[in-house]
Amino acid sequence: MNKNWVLVTGATRGFGRALAFEWIRSLKLLPDGSKLLVTGRDESKVSQLVEELLEKRPQVLVAGKVLDLNSSLIESDINSLFQQEEGNNYACSYLVNNAGTLGPLGPLEDCDWKTISCYFYENVVTTVYLTNQYIRSFGNSFRHVIHISSLAGIEPLEYCGLYCMGKAAKNMQMRMIACEHKNDIRTLNYAPGPMETDMQTHLRDNLPSGPLKTQMVELWKRGQLVAPSESARKLIGILETGRYENGTHIDFYSDNAC
Amino acid sequence: MNKNWVLVTGATRGFGRALAFEWIRSLKLLPDGSKLLVTGRDESKVSQLVEELLEKRPQVLVAGKVLDLNSSLIESDINSLFQQEEGNNYACSYLVNNAGTLGPLGPLEDCDWKTISCYFYENVVTTVYLTNQYIRSFGNSFRHVIHISSLAGIEPLEYCGLYCMGKAAKNMQMRMIACEHKNDIRTLNYAPGPMETDMQTHLRDNLPSGPLKTQMVELWKRGQLVAPSESARKLIGILETGRYENGTHIDFYSDNAC
Repeated sequence: MNKNWVLVTGATRGFGRALAFEWIRSLKLLPDGSKLLVTGRDESKVSQLVEELLEKRPQVLVAGKVLDLNSSLIESDINSLFQQEEGNNYACSYLVNNAGTLGPLGPLEDCDWKTISCYFYENVVTTVYLTNQYIRSFGNSFRHVIHISSLAGIEPLEYCGLYCMGKAAKNMQMRMIACEHKNDIRTLNYAPGPMETDMQTHLRDNLPSGPLKTQMVELWKRGQLVAPSESARKLIGILETGRYENGTHIDFYSDNAC
Repeated sequence: MNKNWVLVTGATRGFGRALAFEWIRSLKLLPDGSKLLVTGRDESKVSQLVEELLEKRPQVLVAGKVLDLNSSLIESDINSLFQQEEGNNYACSYLVNNAGTLGPLGPLEDCDWKTISCYFYENVVTTVYLTNQYIRSFGNSFRHVIHISSLAGIEPLEYCGLYCMGKAAKNMQMRMIACEHKNDIRTLNYAPGPMETDMQTHLRDNLPSGPLKTQMVELWKRGQLVAPSESARKLIGILETGRYENGTHIDFYSDNAC
Protein backbone atom coordinates (compact mmCIF):
# COMPACT_ATOMS: atom_id res chain seq x y z
CA MET A 1 0.00 0.00 0.00
CA ASN A 2 1.96 2.96 -1.26
CA LYS A 3 -0.80 4.91 -2.91
CA ASN A 4 -1.82 8.40 -1.92
CA TRP A 5 -5.07 10.32 -2.16
CA VAL A 6 -5.33 14.05 -2.93
CA LEU A 7 -8.26 16.43 -3.17
CA VAL A 8 -7.70 19.93 -4.60
CA THR A 9 -10.75 22.20 -4.42
CA GLY A 10 -11.28 25.05 -6.88
CA ALA A 11 -8.95 23.34 -9.32
CA THR A 12 -10.35 24.55 -12.63
CA ARG A 13 -8.69 27.96 -12.51
CA GLY A 14 -5.76 29.93 -11.18
CA PHE A 15 -3.57 28.50 -8.46
CA GLY A 16 -5.72 25.40 -7.95
CA ARG A 17 -5.32 24.41 -11.58
CA ALA A 18 -1.57 25.04 -11.52
CA LEU A 19 -1.27 23.01 -8.34
CA ALA A 20 -3.14 20.04 -9.80
CA PHE A 21 -0.74 19.98 -12.76
CA GLU A 22 2.34 20.25 -10.56
CA TRP A 23 1.01 17.65 -8.14
CA ILE A 24 0.42 15.06 -10.85
CA ARG A 25 4.08 15.40 -11.89
CA SER A 26 5.26 14.48 -8.38
CA LEU A 27 6.04 10.75 -8.15
CA LYS A 28 6.68 11.24 -4.46
CA LEU A 29 3.35 12.86 -3.59
CA LEU A 30 1.43 10.81 -6.11
CA PRO A 31 2.94 7.35 -6.73
CA ASP A 32 1.43 5.28 -9.53
CA GLY A 33 -1.99 3.99 -8.58
CA SER A 34 -2.73 7.04 -6.43
CA LYS A 35 -5.90 9.09 -6.73
CA LEU A 36 -6.17 12.77 -7.58
CA LEU A 37 -9.62 14.27 -7.08
CA VAL A 38 -10.30 17.77 -8.37
CA THR A 39 -13.37 19.92 -7.80
CA GLY A 40 -14.76 23.07 -9.35
CA ARG A 41 -18.07 24.82 -9.89
CA ASP A 42 -18.36 24.27 -13.66
CA GLU A 43 -19.07 20.72 -14.80
CA SER A 44 -17.55 21.04 -18.28
CA LYS A 45 -14.40 22.66 -16.93
CA VAL A 46 -14.03 19.90 -14.34
CA SER A 47 -14.39 17.21 -17.05
CA GLN A 48 -11.87 18.93 -19.28
CA LEU A 49 -9.40 19.30 -16.42
CA VAL A 50 -9.68 15.59 -15.61
CA GLU A 51 -8.90 14.70 -19.23
CA GLU A 52 -5.91 17.02 -19.36
CA LEU A 53 -4.53 15.66 -16.10
CA LEU A 54 -4.98 12.05 -17.21
CA GLU A 55 -2.94 12.79 -20.33
CA LYS A 56 -0.03 13.78 -18.09
CA ARG A 57 -0.06 10.60 -15.96
CA PRO A 58 -2.36 7.76 -17.06
CA GLN A 59 -0.95 5.75 -14.13
CA VAL A 60 -2.86 7.98 -11.70
CA LEU A 61 -6.58 7.68 -11.09
CA VAL A 62 -7.92 11.17 -11.78
CA ALA A 63 -11.50 12.03 -10.90
CA GLY A 64 -13.51 15.23 -10.95
CA LYS A 65 -16.52 16.36 -9.01
CA VAL A 66 -18.67 19.46 -9.24
CA LEU A 67 -18.60 21.23 -5.89
CA ASP A 68 -20.04 24.69 -5.43
CA LEU A 69 -19.31 25.93 -1.93
CA ASN A 70 -22.12 28.46 -2.27
CA SER A 71 -24.75 25.84 -3.02
CA SER A 72 -27.57 25.35 -0.53
CA LEU A 73 -26.97 21.60 -0.98
CA ILE A 74 -23.32 21.79 -0.07
CA GLU A 75 -23.68 19.74 3.13
CA SER A 76 -25.07 16.73 1.28
CA ASP A 77 -22.70 17.29 -1.66
CA ILE A 78 -19.75 17.04 0.72
CA ASN A 79 -21.25 14.00 2.44
CA SER A 80 -21.76 12.19 -0.84
CA LEU A 81 -18.25 13.08 -2.00
CA PHE A 82 -16.73 11.28 0.98
CA GLN A 83 -19.23 8.40 0.89
CA GLN A 84 -17.79 7.59 -2.53
CA GLU A 85 -14.18 7.61 -1.36
CA GLU A 86 -12.50 4.66 0.30
CA GLY A 87 -10.35 6.22 2.99
CA ASN A 88 -8.68 2.96 4.02
CA ASN A 89 -6.72 2.38 0.83
CA TYR A 90 -4.07 5.05 1.07
CA ALA A 91 -0.75 5.60 2.80
CA CYS A 92 -0.93 9.40 2.74
CA SER A 93 -3.84 11.67 2.02
CA TYR A 94 -3.98 15.40 1.34
CA LEU A 95 -6.84 17.86 1.38
CA VAL A 96 -6.00 21.17 -0.30
CA ASN A 97 -8.52 23.84 0.65
CA ASN A 98 -7.97 26.18 -2.25
CA ALA A 99 -11.50 27.17 -3.33
CA GLY A 100 -12.66 30.54 -2.11
CA THR A 101 -13.84 33.96 -3.16
CA LEU A 102 -12.44 37.45 -2.71
CA GLY A 103 -15.72 38.92 -1.60
CA PRO A 104 -16.63 42.57 -2.03
CA LEU A 105 -13.84 45.12 -2.46
CA GLY A 106 -14.49 48.23 -0.42
CA PRO A 107 -14.79 49.43 3.16
CA LEU A 108 -15.83 46.60 5.46
CA GLU A 109 -18.73 48.62 6.85
CA ASP A 110 -20.35 48.78 3.41
CA CYS A 111 -21.10 45.06 3.50
CA ASP A 112 -24.77 44.30 3.95
CA TRP A 113 -26.28 41.37 5.82
CA LYS A 114 -26.59 39.04 2.85
CA THR A 115 -23.05 39.68 1.65
CA ILE A 116 -21.59 38.98 5.08
CA SER A 117 -23.62 35.85 5.76
CA CYS A 118 -23.02 34.38 2.29
CA TYR A 119 -19.31 35.09 2.53
CA PHE A 120 -18.80 33.17 5.77
CA TYR A 121 -21.10 30.36 4.61
CA GLU A 122 -19.20 29.88 1.36
CA ASN A 123 -15.68 30.50 2.58
CA VAL A 124 -15.53 29.34 6.16
CA VAL A 125 -18.45 27.13 7.20
CA THR A 126 -18.17 24.86 4.14
CA THR A 127 -14.38 24.64 4.40
CA VAL A 128 -14.55 23.61 8.05
CA TYR A 129 -17.20 21.01 7.28
CA LEU A 130 -15.34 19.65 4.25
CA THR A 131 -12.19 19.38 6.35
CA ASN A 132 -14.03 17.64 9.18
CA GLN A 133 -15.50 15.07 6.82
CA TYR A 134 -12.07 14.48 5.31
CA ILE A 135 -10.46 14.03 8.73
CA ARG A 136 -13.17 11.60 9.82
CA SER A 137 -13.03 9.59 6.58
CA PHE A 138 -9.28 9.18 6.18
CA GLY A 139 -8.19 8.18 9.67
CA ASN A 140 -6.25 5.19 8.37
CA SER A 141 -3.95 7.30 6.21
CA PHE A 142 -1.37 9.92 7.22
CA ARG A 143 -3.58 13.01 6.85
CA HIS A 144 -2.49 16.43 5.63
CA VAL A 145 -4.60 19.58 5.31
CA ILE A 146 -3.23 22.50 3.31
CA HIS A 147 -5.02 25.83 3.36
CA ILE A 148 -4.18 28.04 0.41
CA SER A 149 -3.94 31.17 2.48
CA SER A 150 -2.66 34.66 1.78
CA LEU A 151 -0.84 37.52 3.37
CA ALA A 152 -4.45 38.59 4.03
CA GLY A 153 -4.65 35.86 6.67
CA ILE A 154 -2.08 37.54 8.87
CA GLU A 155 -2.22 41.22 7.87
CA PRO A 156 -5.22 43.43 7.12
CA LEU A 157 -5.34 44.38 3.42
CA GLU A 158 -7.47 47.48 2.93
CA TYR A 159 -10.81 47.01 1.17
CA CYS A 160 -10.59 43.22 1.40
CA GLY A 161 -12.23 42.94 4.82
CA LEU A 162 -14.26 39.77 4.50
CA TYR A 163 -11.43 38.06 2.62
CA CYS A 164 -8.99 38.86 5.42
CA MET A 165 -11.42 37.73 8.12
CA GLY A 166 -12.09 34.44 6.31
CA LYS A 167 -8.39 33.77 5.79
CA ALA A 168 -7.62 34.61 9.43
CA ALA A 169 -10.30 32.15 10.57
CA LYS A 170 -8.99 29.41 8.27
CA ASN A 171 -5.39 30.04 9.31
CA MET A 172 -6.53 29.45 12.87
CA GLN A 173 -8.34 26.30 11.74
CA MET A 174 -5.03 24.85 10.52
CA ARG A 175 -3.24 25.83 13.73
CA MET A 176 -6.09 24.31 15.72
CA ILE A 177 -5.94 20.95 13.99
CA ALA A 178 -2.17 20.87 14.42
CA CYS A 179 -2.58 21.73 18.12
CA GLU A 180 -5.19 19.05 18.73
CA HIS A 181 -3.54 16.30 16.69
CA LYS A 182 0.16 16.99 17.19
CA ASN A 183 1.85 15.03 14.38
CA ASP A 184 -1.06 12.71 13.75
CA ILE A 185 -2.41 15.19 11.20
CA ARG A 186 -0.16 17.74 9.52
CA THR A 187 -1.49 21.13 8.43
CA LEU A 188 -0.03 24.09 6.61
CA ASN A 189 -1.09 27.62 5.69
CA TYR A 190 0.56 28.41 2.38
CA ALA A 191 0.40 31.96 1.03
CA PRO A 192 1.16 31.58 -2.69
CA GLY A 193 2.20 35.19 -3.28
CA PRO A 194 0.72 37.77 -5.69
CA MET A 195 0.06 35.65 -8.77
CA GLU A 196 -0.94 36.19 -12.36
CA THR A 197 -4.51 34.89 -11.95
CA ASP A 198 -8.09 36.00 -12.67
CA MET A 199 -8.40 36.86 -8.98
CA GLN A 200 -5.40 39.18 -9.22
CA THR A 201 -6.82 40.89 -12.32
CA HIS A 202 -10.15 41.34 -10.57
CA LEU A 203 -8.37 42.79 -7.56
CA ARG A 204 -6.28 45.17 -9.66
CA ASP A 205 -9.29 46.35 -11.67
CA ASN A 206 -11.78 46.69 -8.85
CA LEU A 207 -9.95 47.73 -5.70
CA PRO A 208 -10.76 51.30 -4.66
CA SER A 209 -7.76 53.64 -4.92
CA GLY A 210 -5.24 53.37 -2.13
CA PRO A 211 -1.82 51.98 -1.27
CA LEU A 212 -2.84 48.35 -1.93
CA LYS A 213 -4.20 49.11 -5.39
CA THR A 214 -1.07 51.11 -6.22
CA GLN A 215 1.10 48.23 -5.10
CA MET A 216 -0.90 45.69 -7.13
CA VAL A 217 -0.68 47.82 -10.27
CA GLU A 218 3.06 48.34 -9.75
CA LEU A 219 3.74 44.63 -9.36
CA TRP A 220 1.83 43.95 -12.56
CA LYS A 221 3.50 46.75 -14.54
CA ARG A 222 6.96 45.61 -13.46
CA GLY A 223 6.17 42.02 -14.36
CA GLN A 224 6.72 40.96 -10.76
CA LEU A 225 3.60 38.83 -10.36
CA VAL A 226 4.38 35.21 -9.62
CA ALA A 227 3.44 32.52 -12.15
CA PRO A 228 0.95 30.14 -10.49
CA SER A 229 3.02 27.15 -11.66
CA GLU A 230 6.13 28.57 -9.96
CA SER A 231 4.30 29.06 -6.67
CA ALA A 232 2.71 25.63 -7.00
CA ARG A 233 6.17 24.05 -7.47
CA LYS A 234 7.33 25.73 -4.30
CA LEU A 235 4.43 24.22 -2.36
CA ILE A 236 5.04 20.78 -3.90
CA GLY A 237 8.69 21.05 -2.82
CA ILE A 238 7.67 21.89 0.75
CA LEU A 239 5.26 18.95 0.88
CA GLU A 240 7.75 16.53 -0.68
CA THR A 241 10.38 17.25 1.95
CA GLY A 242 7.76 17.60 4.72
CA ARG A 243 10.08 20.06 6.42
CA TYR A 244 7.62 22.50 7.93
CA GLU A 245 6.42 23.08 11.44
CA ASN A 246 2.95 21.64 11.89
CA GLY A 247 0.26 24.32 11.53
CA THR A 248 2.64 27.03 10.40
CA HIS A 249 2.17 29.80 7.83
CA ILE A 250 4.61 29.81 4.92
CA ASP A 251 4.68 32.52 2.32
CA PHE A 252 5.97 32.04 -1.23
CA TYR A 253 8.63 34.61 -0.36
CA SER A 254 9.54 33.11 3.03
CA ASP A 255 13.05 31.80 3.61
CA ASN A 256 11.57 28.90 5.51
CA ALA A 257 9.79 27.70 2.39
CA CYS A 258 12.52 25.11 1.70
CA MET B 1 -22.01 68.67 23.11
CA ASN B 2 -19.92 66.62 25.49
CA LYS B 3 -22.09 63.56 25.77
CA ASN B 4 -20.97 60.09 24.82
CA TRP B 5 -22.82 57.00 23.66
CA VAL B 6 -21.92 53.44 24.62
CA LEU B 7 -23.32 50.06 23.66
CA VAL B 8 -22.18 46.96 25.55
CA THR B 9 -23.54 43.68 24.15
CA GLY B 10 -24.01 40.60 26.32
CA ALA B 11 -24.09 42.83 29.40
CA THR B 12 -26.31 40.80 31.73
CA ARG B 13 -23.56 38.39 32.79
CA GLY B 14 -19.86 37.92 33.27
CA PHE B 15 -17.43 40.41 31.86
CA GLY B 16 -20.10 42.40 29.99
CA ARG B 17 -21.95 43.07 33.25
CA ALA B 18 -18.77 44.01 35.09
CA LEU B 19 -17.79 46.34 32.27
CA ALA B 20 -21.17 48.11 32.29
CA PHE B 21 -20.77 48.80 36.02
CA GLU B 22 -17.20 50.05 35.66
CA TRP B 23 -18.11 52.14 32.62
CA ILE B 24 -20.94 53.96 34.38
CA ARG B 25 -18.48 55.01 37.11
CA SER B 26 -16.21 56.70 34.56
CA LEU B 27 -17.00 60.41 34.31
CA LYS B 28 -14.50 60.65 31.49
CA LEU B 29 -16.00 57.93 29.29
CA LEU B 30 -19.55 58.73 30.31
CA PRO B 31 -20.06 62.42 31.18
CA ASP B 32 -23.44 63.41 32.63
CA GLY B 33 -26.16 63.29 29.99
CA SER B 34 -24.44 60.46 28.12
CA LYS B 35 -26.21 57.28 27.07
CA LEU B 36 -25.35 53.74 28.07
CA LEU B 37 -27.17 51.04 26.13
CA VAL B 38 -26.91 47.45 27.29
CA THR B 39 -28.14 44.32 25.53
CA GLY B 40 -28.70 40.72 26.53
CA ARG B 41 -30.83 37.73 25.61
CA ASP B 42 -33.10 37.70 28.66
CA GLU B 43 -35.65 40.52 28.92
CA SER B 44 -36.05 40.45 32.69
CA LYS B 45 -32.30 40.40 33.24
CA VAL B 46 -31.86 43.33 30.87
CA SER B 47 -34.55 45.35 32.74
CA GLN B 48 -33.01 44.55 36.10
CA LEU B 49 -29.55 45.53 34.87
CA VAL B 50 -30.86 48.87 33.61
CA GLU B 51 -32.39 49.60 37.03
CA GLU B 52 -29.20 48.69 38.87
CA LEU B 53 -27.08 50.83 36.57
CA LEU B 54 -29.43 53.81 36.92
CA GLU B 55 -29.09 53.60 40.68
CA LYS B 56 -25.35 54.14 40.29
CA ARG B 57 -25.60 57.25 38.09
CA PRO B 58 -29.05 58.77 37.58
CA GLN B 59 -27.34 61.50 35.50
CA VAL B 60 -26.75 58.96 32.72
CA LEU B 61 -29.46 57.80 30.35
CA VAL B 62 -29.41 54.02 30.67
CA ALA B 63 -31.40 51.90 28.26
CA GLY B 64 -31.68 48.18 27.67
CA LYS B 65 -32.61 46.15 24.65
CA VAL B 66 -33.11 42.43 24.15
CA LEU B 67 -30.70 41.23 21.48
CA ASP B 68 -30.20 37.55 20.77
CA LEU B 69 -27.42 37.12 18.23
CA ASN B 70 -28.74 33.66 17.44
CA SER B 71 -32.22 34.88 16.52
CA SER B 72 -33.37 34.46 12.93
CA LEU B 73 -34.64 38.06 13.19
CA ILE B 74 -31.29 39.46 14.21
CA GLU B 75 -30.83 41.53 11.03
CA SER B 76 -34.02 43.50 11.62
CA ASP B 77 -33.40 43.61 15.39
CA ILE B 78 -30.06 45.30 14.74
CA ASN B 79 -31.59 47.65 12.18
CA SER B 80 -34.33 48.72 14.57
CA LEU B 81 -31.81 49.20 17.37
CA PHE B 82 -29.91 51.78 15.34
CA GLN B 83 -33.05 53.38 13.90
CA GLN B 84 -33.95 54.32 17.46
CA GLU B 85 -30.57 55.88 18.21
CA GLU B 86 -29.64 59.43 17.26
CA GLY B 87 -26.03 59.19 16.15
CA ASN B 88 -25.55 62.93 15.73
CA ASN B 89 -25.82 63.91 19.36
CA TYR B 90 -22.59 62.57 20.73
CA ALA B 91 -18.95 63.58 20.93
CA CYS B 92 -17.60 60.06 21.32
CA SER B 93 -19.29 56.74 20.78
CA TYR B 94 -18.23 53.23 21.74
CA LEU B 95 -19.43 49.84 20.58
CA VAL B 96 -18.26 46.99 22.80
CA ASN B 97 -18.67 43.64 21.05
CA ASN B 98 -18.72 41.42 24.09
CA ALA B 99 -21.58 38.98 23.39
CA GLY B 100 -20.51 35.59 22.16
CA THR B 101 -20.57 31.89 22.86
CA LEU B 102 -17.86 29.34 23.56
CA GLY B 103 -19.23 26.79 21.14
CA PRO B 104 -18.68 23.06 21.48
CA LEU B 105 -15.71 21.83 23.52
CA GLY B 106 -13.96 18.97 21.76
CA PRO B 107 -11.95 18.16 18.65
CA LEU B 108 -12.76 20.57 15.85
CA GLU B 109 -13.51 17.71 13.44
CA ASP B 110 -16.38 16.52 15.66
CA CYS B 111 -18.42 19.63 14.80
CA ASP B 112 -21.34 18.89 12.51
CA TRP B 113 -22.79 21.15 9.84
CA LYS B 114 -25.42 22.82 12.01
CA THR B 115 -23.00 23.51 14.84
CA ILE B 116 -20.48 25.13 12.50
CA SER B 117 -22.98 27.22 10.58
CA CYS B 118 -24.82 28.41 13.71
CA TYR B 119 -21.53 29.29 15.39
CA PHE B 120 -20.33 31.60 12.63
CA TYR B 121 -23.82 33.08 12.20
CA GLU B 122 -24.14 33.93 15.87
CA ASN B 123 -20.58 34.92 16.62
CA VAL B 124 -19.16 36.45 13.46
CA VAL B 125 -21.81 37.39 10.89
CA THR B 126 -24.00 39.21 13.41
CA THR B 127 -21.04 40.98 15.02
CA VAL B 128 -19.78 42.25 11.67
CA TYR B 129 -23.27 43.46 10.75
CA LEU B 130 -23.87 45.11 14.12
CA THR B 131 -20.51 46.86 13.82
CA ASN B 132 -21.25 48.01 10.27
CA GLN B 133 -24.59 49.49 11.31
CA TYR B 134 -22.91 51.24 14.22
CA ILE B 135 -20.17 52.66 12.01
CA ARG B 136 -22.72 53.91 9.48
CA SER B 137 -25.01 55.43 12.11
CA PHE B 138 -22.46 57.26 14.26
CA GLY B 139 -20.31 59.01 11.64
CA ASN B 140 -20.65 62.35 13.41
CA SER B 141 -19.08 61.12 16.61
CA PHE B 142 -15.55 59.90 17.30
CA ARG B 143 -16.20 56.17 16.88
CA HIS B 144 -14.58 53.35 18.86
CA VAL B 145 -15.09 49.62 18.47
CA ILE B 146 -13.83 47.29 21.19
CA HIS B 147 -13.83 43.55 20.64
CA ILE B 148 -13.73 41.55 23.85
CA SER B 149 -11.29 39.04 22.54
CA SER B 150 -9.22 36.31 24.14
CA LEU B 151 -5.86 34.63 23.98
CA ALA B 152 -7.91 32.27 21.76
CA GLY B 153 -7.88 34.96 19.06
CA ILE B 154 -4.13 34.71 18.62
CA GLU B 155 -3.25 31.20 19.82
CA PRO B 156 -5.04 27.90 19.26
CA LEU B 157 -6.56 26.59 22.50
CA GLU B 158 -7.20 22.86 22.24
CA TYR B 159 -10.82 21.73 22.08
CA CYS B 160 -12.07 25.30 21.54
CA GLY B 161 -11.78 25.27 17.75
CA LEU B 162 -14.79 27.30 16.68
CA TYR B 163 -14.21 29.78 19.50
CA CYS B 164 -10.63 30.36 18.36
CA MET B 165 -11.65 30.70 14.71
CA GLY B 166 -14.37 33.21 15.57
CA LYS B 167 -12.04 35.25 17.77
CA ALA B 168 -9.33 35.21 15.09
CA ALA B 169 -11.83 36.49 12.52
CA LYS B 170 -13.05 39.25 14.84
CA ASN B 171 -9.50 40.23 15.78
CA MET B 172 -8.87 40.71 12.06
CA GLN B 173 -12.10 42.73 11.81
CA MET B 174 -10.72 45.23 14.33
CA ARG B 175 -7.36 45.44 12.53
CA MET B 176 -9.20 45.87 9.24
CA ILE B 177 -11.31 48.80 10.44
CA ALA B 178 -8.20 50.44 11.91
CA CYS B 179 -6.37 49.91 8.61
CA GLU B 180 -9.17 51.35 6.51
CA HIS B 181 -10.01 54.28 8.77
CA LYS B 182 -6.63 55.22 10.23
CA ASN B 183 -7.48 57.36 13.27
CA ASP B 184 -10.98 58.23 12.12
CA ILE B 185 -12.28 55.15 13.94
CA ARG B 186 -10.34 53.53 16.79
CA THR B 187 -10.52 49.81 17.45
CA LEU B 188 -9.09 47.50 20.08
CA ASN B 189 -8.93 43.78 20.74
CA TYR B 190 -8.95 43.36 24.50
CA ALA B 191 -8.32 39.91 25.99
CA PRO B 192 -9.71 40.14 29.54
CA GLY B 193 -7.74 37.21 30.94
CA PRO B 194 -9.01 34.02 32.62
CA MET B 195 -11.89 35.35 34.71
CA GLU B 196 -14.20 34.07 37.39
CA THR B 197 -17.28 33.86 35.15
CA ASP B 198 -19.94 31.32 34.13
CA MET B 199 -18.04 30.80 30.89
CA GLN B 200 -14.91 29.88 32.82
CA THR B 201 -16.83 27.42 34.99
CA HIS B 202 -18.37 25.85 31.91
CA LEU B 203 -14.93 25.57 30.32
CA ARG B 204 -13.39 24.03 33.44
CA ASP B 205 -16.23 21.52 33.83
CA ASN B 206 -16.63 20.52 30.21
CA LEU B 207 -13.24 20.67 28.50
CA PRO B 208 -11.92 17.21 27.61
CA SER B 209 -8.79 16.27 29.56
CA GLY B 210 -5.59 17.85 28.35
CA PRO B 211 -3.09 20.59 29.14
CA LEU B 212 -5.65 23.40 28.79
CA LYS B 213 -8.10 21.78 31.23
CA THR B 214 -5.27 21.12 33.69
CA GLN B 215 -4.20 24.76 33.46
CA MET B 216 -7.77 26.03 33.95
CA VAL B 217 -8.29 23.84 37.01
CA GLU B 218 -4.93 24.91 38.46
CA LEU B 219 -5.72 28.61 38.03
CA TRP B 220 -9.03 28.09 39.79
CA LYS B 221 -7.60 26.00 42.64
CA ARG B 222 -4.86 28.53 43.27
CA GLY B 223 -7.35 31.40 43.26
CA GLN B 224 -5.59 32.98 40.31
CA LEU B 225 -8.64 33.70 38.20
CA VAL B 226 -9.14 37.38 37.54
CA ALA B 227 -12.18 39.18 38.94
CA PRO B 228 -14.27 40.51 36.02
CA SER B 229 -14.43 43.92 37.69
CA GLU B 230 -10.63 44.09 37.92
CA SER B 231 -10.23 43.27 34.24
CA ALA B 232 -13.02 45.72 33.35
CA ARG B 233 -11.21 48.49 35.28
CA LYS B 234 -8.08 47.79 33.29
CA LEU B 235 -9.98 48.19 30.03
CA ILE B 236 -11.65 51.39 31.27
CA GLY B 237 -8.18 52.75 32.15
CA ILE B 238 -6.88 51.97 28.66
CA LEU B 239 -9.87 53.67 27.04
CA GLU B 240 -9.69 56.70 29.34
CA THR B 241 -6.08 57.41 28.41
CA GLY B 242 -6.61 56.34 24.79
CA ARG B 243 -2.98 55.23 24.73
CA TYR B 244 -3.17 52.17 22.50
CA GLU B 245 -2.13 51.56 18.95
CA ASN B 246 -5.19 51.51 16.71
CA GLY B 247 -6.36 47.95 15.97
CA THR B 248 -3.97 46.32 18.44
CA HIS B 249 -4.49 43.34 20.73
CA ILE B 250 -4.03 43.99 24.44
CA ASP B 251 -4.15 41.27 27.03
CA PHE B 252 -5.08 41.83 30.68
CA TYR B 253 -1.57 40.67 31.53
CA SER B 254 0.20 42.78 28.87
CA ASP B 255 2.68 45.41 29.96
CA ASN B 256 1.31 47.70 27.27
CA ALA B 257 -2.09 47.73 28.98
CA CYS B 258 -1.26 51.06 30.64
